[in-house]
Amino acid sequence: MNEHASRAATHDAARVARLRAAMRDAGVDACIVPSSDPHLSEYPPLHWQARAWLSGFTGSVGTLVVTASFAGVWVDSRYWVQAEAELDGTGVELMKLLPGSPAAHVDWLVAHLAPGAVLAVDGRVLALAAADALAAALTARGIALRTDLDLPAAVWTDRPPLPVQAVFEHGAPFAPLARADKLAAVRRAMAGHSADQHLLSTLDDIAWLFNLRGADVNYNPVFVAHALVGPERATLFVDAEKVPAPVRRALAADGVDLAAYATVPAALAALPPGTRLLVDPRRMTHGLVGALHARGNGDGGQRAAGQGDGEHGGVADGPPTLVQAPNPSTLAKACKTAAEIANVRETMEQDGAALCEFFVWLEAQLAAGAPDLTELSVDTQLHATRARRPNFVSESFGTIAGFNANGAMPHYRATREAHAAITGDGLLLIDSGGQYLGGTTDITRVVPVGTPSLAQKHDFTTVLQGMIALSAARFPRGIRSPMLDAIARAPLWAQGLDYGHGTGHGVGYFLNVHEGPQVISHHAPPDAVTAMEEGMITSIEPGVYRAGQWGVRIENLVVNRRVADAGGDAGDFGEFLDFETLTLCPIDTRCIVAERLTPHERQWLNAYHATVRARLSRWVEGEARVWLEARTQPL
Amino acid sequence: MNEHASRAATHDAARVARLRAAMRDAGVDACIVPSSDPHLSEYPPLHWQARAWLSGFTGSVGTLVVTASFAGVWVDSRYWVQAEAELDGTGVELMKLLPGSPAAHVDWLVAHLAPGAVLAVDGRVLALAAADALAAALTARGIALRTDLDLPAAVWTDRPPLPVQAVFEHGAPFAPLARADKLAAVRRAMAGHSADQHLLSTLDDIAWLFNLRGADVNYNPVFVAHALVGPERATLFVDAEKVPAPVRRALAADGVDLAAYATVPAALAALPPGTRLLVDPRRMTHGLVGALHARGNGDGGQRAAGQGDGEHGGVADGPPTLVQAPNPSTLAKACKTAAEIANVRETMEQDGAALCEFFVWLEAQLAAGAPDLTELSVDTQLHATRARRPNFVSESFGTIAGFNANGAMPHYRATREAHAAITGDGLLLIDSGGQYLGGTTDITRVVPVGTPSLAQKHDFTTVLQGMIALSAARFPRGIRSPMLDAIARAPLWAQGLDYGHGTGHGVGYFLNVHEGPQVISHHAPPDAVTAMEEGMITSIEPGVYRAGQWGVRIENLVVNRRVADAGGDAGDFGEFLDFETLTLCPIDTRCIVAERLTPHERQWLNAYHATVRARLSRWVEGEARVWLEARTQPL
Repeated sequence: MNEHASRAATHDAARVARLRAAMRDAGVDACIVPSSDPHLSEYPPLHWQARAWLSGFTGSVGTLVVTASFAGVWVDSRYWVQAEAELDGTGVELMKLLPGSPAAHVDWLVAHLAPGAVLAVDGRVLALAAADALAAALTARGIALRTDLDLPAAVWTDRPPLPVQAVFEHGAPFAPLARADKLAAVRRAMAGHSADQHLLSTLDDIAWLFNLRGADVNYNPVFVAHALVGPERATLFVDAEKVPAPVRRALAADGVDLAAYATVPAALAALPPGTRLLVDPRRMTHGLVGALHARGNGDGGQRAAGQGDGEHGGVADGPPTLVQAPNPSTLAKACKTAAEIANVRETMEQDGAALCEFFVWLEAQLAAGAPDLTELSVDTQLHATRARRPNFVSESFGTIAGFNANGAMPHYRATREAHAAITGDGLLLIDSGGQYLGGTTDITRVVPVGTPSLAQKHDFTTVLQGMIALSAARFPRGIRSPMLDAIARAPLWAQGLDYGHGTGHGVGYFLNVHEGPQVISHHAPPDAVTAMEEGMITSIEPGVYRAGQWGVRIENLVVNRRVADAGGDAGDFGEFLDFETLTLCPIDTRCIVAERLTPHERQWLNAYHATVRARLSRWVEGEARVWLEARTQPL
Repeated sequence: MNEHASRAATHDAARVARLRAAMRDAGVDACIVPSSDPHLSEYPPLHWQARAWLSGFTGSVGTLVVTASFAGVWVDSRYWVQAEAELDGTGVELMKLLPGSPAAHVDWLVAHLAPGAVLAVDGRVLALAAADALAAALTARGIALRTDLDLPAAVWTDRPPLPVQAVFEHGAPFAPLARADKLAAVRRAMAGHSADQHLLSTLDDIAWLFNLRGADVNYNPVFVAHALVGPERATLFVDAEKVPAPVRRALAADGVDLAAYATVPAALAALPPGTRLLVDPRRMTHGLVGALHARGNGDGGQRAAGQGDGEHGGVADGPPTLVQAPNPSTLAKACKTAAEIANVRETMEQDGAALCEFFVWLEAQLAAGAPDLTELSVDTQLHATRARRPNFVSESFGTIAGFNANGAMPHYRATREAHAAITGDGLLLIDSGGQYLGGTTDITRVVPVGTPSLAQKHDFTTVLQGMIALSAARFPRGIRSPMLDAIARAPLWAQGLDYGHGTGHGVGYFLNVHEGPQVISHHAPPDAVTAMEEGMITSIEPGVYRAGQWGVRIENLVVNRRVADAGGDAGDFGEFLDFETLTLCPIDTRCIVAERLTPHERQWLNAYHATVRARLSRWVEGEARVWLEARTQPL
């Protein structure tokens, strides 16, 4: 999946008015309400969804800006249709965000606010790097920035509480690397930066590092917490009642103490003089460490000088100083171990078997012309079949099942109120995934309904060619992943086609379905941290979307694999990686214009289907086995 | 060509010692000597080649750092072999610069200088943006930066004077766009930034804007000058004796006044209060405008906020303030007009005809086993054949003729002292180009000598596949050019091969053979200014280099062409561009392993050769015509 389906919120236009009143009282001229939380999560708990509550736009990504005379939400193309509907009549404008201009709302503010104006944004939900950039842009215009106000909170009656789901161990065999070993590795990285302490706020980094999981938000098995790692002991800031006694004891045995979630600022204040505190400027909030950051600055310049992970200076006996570098856990988490990859392969067999059973059911429904077959029943049935598999925990995101025109919305989510019946001719796009103890899955397939048109088959074939081109690619180890995007898009570009979303996102190991640092998108900044390394799991999901008609997207997950015998005279040209395709599920050959495939593409597809058949057949029986045989026949 | 062959300088190790003495006298702990000049030229006049004079390393790119106990030059991989030889025994260390870390010497300084140290670099040869980045990195370490000292000058006895070659008009039909029209376009862009004045220092921008050319440096037909463009009149800062009276009169008629080269600072100081001065932070020196920049800053932040062309604030009645944005002339110059492209097509026919005659001579020499055939005689003969063509002015860079092992050095330059005889079996790589009144050419071909090995033919075939892949590509208008690199490299990567240089550089119109803003290299920062636009001329030159054995590079120039009927439902997917190949010269099919070509690749090559034959045959006769026929036969 290339983005997330969001929860609904009923809208009340008076909310923005109440915010304006609070702004007046605080002497604030403009207010930014981002889609973020103190953990910079992609999917914040309801407690932190102030932007959705205020504006009425419920998409997972968007930035609300309110002034005395203006209110608008900056939204990327995936959400334009949805936002137009949800914002209609609210007085909140839809501001269309174009790829490559992530700070368009800042440009707008700089252009519309007068020198001397005051802008407020809650520093507790703003990344350190984002705060720096914002402050610099505003300062250049003589605009003051206040990060110490949570104005939405002031007007947010009936604000949902913080989630309190239980935390649980993610133990062996599913977590092959012990918590103590992970902590040791992070401490080695800290030493490399001469850092004494390391503060983490991103929930997937914390869940990975401590081999713990939770259920505080939908789809992502994480729990709300901060963590402070010292030379010998570490502290997990999480509300104690969420952590069962056995887990608490196990943590203590590994040198991990618990502290109340709200006590992080106090713990930071209590750090001894001269402490060097490692934080990731993109994964740490201005609210928590901005005060330390204000002293001993220069990071912007170091970035400009190409030192993305440059460190800060600071005198040894002063108060704590920041060492800014990417979280060591972020790269370690992204590079799956051999044991984790082995678990993912088993998980993919279970997920693939579930999909076989699902497609058998779906095709029976289509054959019978079942009148009650809708996008919603697809969602329900898909969940039911996955839920029967061992080690299944939950979906990894809200299923996207879109028939014809609905499939043309990459971000479509069928609802009780609005969903299509699946009948007649066309294409049904299904993007879904599961969280298993042994891995996270994410797959998109498109199946024919009735008789698809030739035009639909051509789009399917072109998208498949793009997916094969990248799936079969070799590339130098360490290349910045955004640079690989063109390989997948070239076959689409050759036909004058393209798609607005990225080609691939990193995927966690029983963690977030969207995980960094790698990303295959030519719109993404190719920072050093996006370099491709062995063991990274990424999606490959090109698509074609014809508004109001149909959509095609084909998605597999792949893992970076070292090429043993990198061609040429061994080693002369550096190390190379290629992709092992992890996802196991037939790609519907009934939608392919076979004569357009090159011998190499045909070969790839037939080999893939042979693997799918070989790996899945032992997990399916009866009709499902028959279906698997039929759908994996060579072209 | 992918880099430049440099002039030689005899070395004297005492020079660095004299610099250290001057540093001591000035209280300076470290000194940076970049390869640059007040015009940030790629090929500075000898007068500005202090780095080469001091270090003995004569490559065109490199950065010298000197402290009391250390001296080293940061050099990229193209120059390692050369630098190792030239620096041997000088006490100056070769510091190997890796792709993607352009500021490695700054990292080194930050790591090795103590807080409180003083670093000096001549601000007059430092770009504004580079100075900002350097200052920020040093400030973070408590290191002081002095940009007001030219320490090399203090020790540089026998420093060559500034060049004084005559300036000449580049008029119609070769310059289809009149000077007055170009000035009007630049003034419109200035108005778009609410700028009253615009200062230019980059020599190709100035040559383009005023339709003037010169000969102050080898290969680039430019002249040393600055320019200040105001609302009605413009001032060209160039020594008057270089400008013939008729040219002076023509300039005056177009509202262009002349002033002495050295009077720029005075002219800036005389700007009226409140003036908004447009400068390009990457094409303007800290020395000229750093003082203005120091006030009303914040650009770094604006860049961080994604506003590459963001403007500065500033009160209307204060002293002049800077408006920082790319030079309007840089993009205008890069996007060749239809008339210019038509001229380039004719130029390519002349250049191609010269190459036919050259190759006839070369093959005759090889057939006769001429004992005196060397890389140098190739250079001489190539120049002689080009010089016979109409409108030829000079070479566009120093010819690279490398036989076998010498061809494995992308930057090899045969010299009287060191060059190879062309005899036996193998591959001869020839990278050369010409400056014509109607355009600039740059082409690389590889020809077989005796009987090339199968391994050599495989490398040739793989490189050809990479060149065809990109040459045949379609891509969205506006895509950032570095993102296209993977399309050319994918066929090489598939074989475990790669190359250290970029795949393509922009090429000027009877101007610099290396021209921005577009660049096809995954190592290059994909800034907004690198976006592909109609009319841009770029090289496509993948290669494979086997150290000590042989090298293969195949290079054509291509121009971005609008695709009329971009596929899918017209326009649904945005505008697309493709490449028209401009270079006209056979690609030697005797080096191809034909069975490895796909039908599509074979088709492309045969179509290209049909075009070459059709376009060149009317310009060649006799043996050359016969040779053309033979070398353009379909595979």
